[in-house]
Amino acid sequence: MTATLQNDSFLRACLRQPTDHTPVWLMRQAGRYLPEYRATRGQAGSFMGLATNTDFATEVTLQPLERYKLDAAILFSDILTVPDAMGLGLSFALGEGPKFAHPVRDEAAVAKLEVPDMAKLQYVFDAVTSIRKALNGRVPLIGFSGSPWTLACYMVEGAGSDDYRLVKTMLYSRPDLMHRMLKVNADAVATYLNTQIEAGAQAVMIFDSWGGVLADGAFQTFSLDYTRRVLAQLKREHNGQRIPHIVFTKGGGLWLEEIAATGADVVGLDWTVNLGKARQRIGHLAALQGNLDPNVLFASPEQIRTEVQKTLDNFGPWARGDGLGAGHIFNLGHGISQHTPPESVSALVDAVHEYSPRMHTRR
Amino acid sequence: MTATLQNDSFLRACLRQPTDHTPVWLMRQAGRYLPEYRATRGQAGSFMGLATNTDFATEVTLQPLERYKLDAAILFSDILTVPDAMGLGLSFALGEGPKFAHPVRDEAAVAKLEVPDMAKLQYVFDAVTSIRKALNGRVPLIGFSGSPWTLACYMVEGAGSDDYRLVKTMLYSRPDLMHRMLKVNADAVATYLNTQIEAGAQAVMIFDSWGGVLADGAFQTFSLDYTRRVLAQLKREHNGQRIPHIVFTKGGGLWLEEIAATGADVVGLDWTVNLGKARQRIGHLAALQGNLDPNVLFASPEQIRTEVQKTLDNFGPWARGDGLGAGHIFNLGHGISQHTPPESVSALVDAVHEYSPRMHTRR
Repeated sequence: MTATLQNDSFLRACLRQPTDHTPVWLMRQAGRYLPEYRATRGQAGSFMGLATNTDFATEVTLQPLERYKLDAAILFSDILTVPDAMGLGLSFALGEGPKFAHPVRDEAAVAKLEVPDMAKLQYVFDAVTSIRKALNGRVPLIGFSGSPWTLACYMVEGAGSDDYRLVKTMLYSRPDLMHRMLKVNADAVATYLNTQIEAGAQAVMIFDSWGGVLADGAFQTFSLDYTRRVLAQLKREHNGQRIPHIVFTKGGGLWLEEIAATGADVVGLDWTVNLGKARQRIGHLAALQGNLDPNVLFASPEQIRTEVQKTLDNFGPWARGDGLGAGHIFNLGHGISQHTPPESVSALVDAVHEYSPRMHTRR
Repeated sequence: MTATLQNDSFLRACLRQPTDHTPVWLMRQAGRYLPEYRATRGQAGSFMGLATNTDFATEVTLQPLERYKLDAAILFSDILTVPDAMGLGLSFALGEGPKFAHPVRDEAAVAKLEVPDMAKLQYVFDAVTSIRKALNGRVPLIGFSGSPWTLACYMVEGAGSDDYRLVKTMLYSRPDLMHRMLKVNADAVATYLNTQIEAGAQAVMIFDSWGGVLADGAFQTFSLDYTRRVLAQLKREHNGQRIPHIVFTKGGGLWLEEIAATGADVVGLDWTVNLGKARQRIGHLAALQGNLDPNVLFASPEQIRTEVQKTLDNFGPWARGDGLGAGHIFNLGHGISQHTPPESVSALVDAVHEYSPRMHTRR
């Protein structure tokens, strides 16, 4: 369980400590673009069958590490496990997104919500411990959850949405209900992430996938305030090791200063943000994670390499002594597409490892 | 045709001239949320049946003006008329978005593209002239088109998309093809808008609805450069009247300075942008249009009024003499939802008219 970590570049970068290259991992790196993932999912029968089985979850988490020189692993799970444990009935129809059988749409449903018994999420913690063991110190393991607001979106809409009409109707017309739901979500997410840390997660990430659909003002009140409530409860250390906290708000580029001011160690960026400008804005407060457009992976290996280099150049050399702060974890700006050719990921990961050391030369 | 304009508040605000109230209109104000629109569409049989019939198009354009004290009318049409005229075969299946029968996905299809004969769009220009006559000087008429990039998205994808994979694959792997398509689109859009101006449009708006899905860098190269190419060709005056140019990039909040630097008279803002901060950034260069979340219209009239006041307060008093520039056109941050209760629009429009005069008191 406590095998020595052989590659700590990811954890060092999260804490803005010097590294010899820029670490890289990809959101949804264990996923449908990999034929070996599809084979395991076929055996498991369903997405939740995969996520709730310790052996399968361990197997698919490690699959991308066998193929690519990734610097971190991320727990194979879903952002919606917490509302599922609240009794909302999560399912994934084939080829569709997540669905809840019992969405939360009125005062009575909101009143019934409470922080779920973590025993219902034991399959997640078991997977964390099992993956950590299987990794045997190769790279660190990242745990994660959806943000309180992102969970609320799915809990009210009952599924994905393109206009967020139901959840925003509740937000604007019954802010009292929305605040109650978000409080429960925040406390549940904090407990959930702390239990992942105790089970072996070496960093934790909060996915605020839908923060960017909120209006300015509403974002601060209904998303960021509750992300802050989670962060305030999170363990900062476990077994003497610092546990970095990562916050990723898709579409949050206008609010980077406010996101960094939460005290998150790492701020995730989508591809609309210029990495150099983001570093000027918040690089002294947090490390940055991102931010290549996943669609770049549909271009040729040469073109992928060029875009990887541009991204690394946008961040710039780490040790330039101008007080900008230096910590960059290479990633996509969003989850990898299921249609991605697996060879494209090799081109990306290899390019980061080949090109990034020049960003780490001491000046 | 040249009836004297009785309410020029919209045109004055576009040019950052003093007005006695903040003018208001709503994107997609003539649309499915109105029962009278649904009745006319029923008669017309289809969306394109409605848009291509001068009488119907005139009727539905004026419908919201009969109900609400709106300060501008906008041509009833679609952003995709230009690629339809290029021969791509636009259709709207009931309850679905637009579809093209012949998407543009390879070198041969791109090579065939050219600026369409404007005669194929005569129905649009006829509608403009007819609406202008029917308005008889009540309020000004806005013409519009999709931006070159937004047209390209639909032309390549063939329909709406949630990941823009096909169009971005072309962009990253065959930028030469994408540039050729965007050049044709830009020249076609410029000709199209100029012909709308000649037919009677008193302002024109470029909808860059999908500019915000691009990565930083790609946005400038593949969207903004071609919006600039359109603007460079647009008439600035017609019959001695200034014709304001409006550019709206949904999700463009990070790039406001660059958008304003195109020389557009008005920059449209979605709800993620803080209007006061946007004014500080670009209010001296352009008027601002926006930016209430359309989902506010699902709250109560009192709550709508509160949100309208917040929006007007965010922009602030027009005459504060601090060099920030003053021009605000109240609008939503995106098109109105078809599910909106019509009474909510009364609450919004009346609140703008009641509350905004205090923003226009000379100090």
